[in-house]
Amino acid sequence: MPGSGWATDRLPPELARTPEPPYYAVIFSSILRIDDPAYHWMSERMAELVDRQPGFLGWESARSPEGLGITVSYWASLEAVAHWKEQHEHRIAQRRGQEVWYARYTIRIAHVERAVVFSAGSESGSVDWPAIRQDPPGGR
Amino acid sequence: MPGSGWATDRLPPELARTPEPPYYAVIFSSILRIDDPAYHWMSERMAELVDRQPGFLGWESARSPEGLGITVSYWASLEAVAHWKEQHEHRIAQRRGQEVWYARYTIRIAHVERAVVFSAGSESGSVDWPAIRQDPPGGR
Repeated sequence: MPGSGWATDRLPPELARTPEPPYYAVIFSSILRIDDPAYHWMSERMAELVDRQPGFLGWESARSPEGLGITVSYWASLEAVAHWKEQHEHRIAQRRGQEVWYARYTIRIAHVERAVVFSAGSESGSVDWPAIRQDPPGGR
Repeated sequence: MPGSGWATDRLPPELARTPEPPYYAVIFSSILRIDDPAYHWMSERMAELVDRQPGFLGWESARSPEGLGITVSYWASLEAVAHWKEQHEHRIAQRRGQEVWYARYTIRIAHVERAVVFSAGSESGSVDWPAIRQDPPGGR
């Protein structure tokens, strides 16, 4: 998660089940400086906390063996993102992340406009990409 | 990458160096069905190809040992995203991904509105989160 970088080391792989767009995504990409057990404890604590935040829609996280991690959390509004940013324990985790855990990170706040889900063997198997349309649909 | 899911198995961990927002992000989250060498070959080919696409700004990718992968690619415009979606070899990879590689995936297209970078030990070390502001700044 942004500023604290919880990881999914002990969670089963699962994709977030978000509602239909629009909503917000916080894309947190990071490279770790050290492998600190406290980092993992904090990550689990953040995963617990975020789940109770107002406007929280879900999250996905992966860290490659080479040390690059990506966590994307999904939010109903910018207000919800701002509220989570200021959450007390999360603030402590953010500070600790800067002081100890992260060599480098980027946080991007993005407005999700379109989404599709593919599941092997399901009806939606034929849906592959969100429609990309820059202009409003023509008249019918 | 969306629909093809290139992975970074053989690339060093590195964060994308994107320009100032706004720009677009394609967030591709996936769970693999099988571990197929051809998946990795295709991933490397897609990484080669995407780098030459017009409007491509960079990408980041991580797959956890448990099999959840997140690849985020960054683009100058929706037109650039659409162009990449239709790239010939990429189309083949997308089809193959649905038929063979992926148990499940989600593709989200999002408009990146804010971004911050943190580097340990650098001047920007004090920057932790993008400013989150829903209303225009007040008068000064």
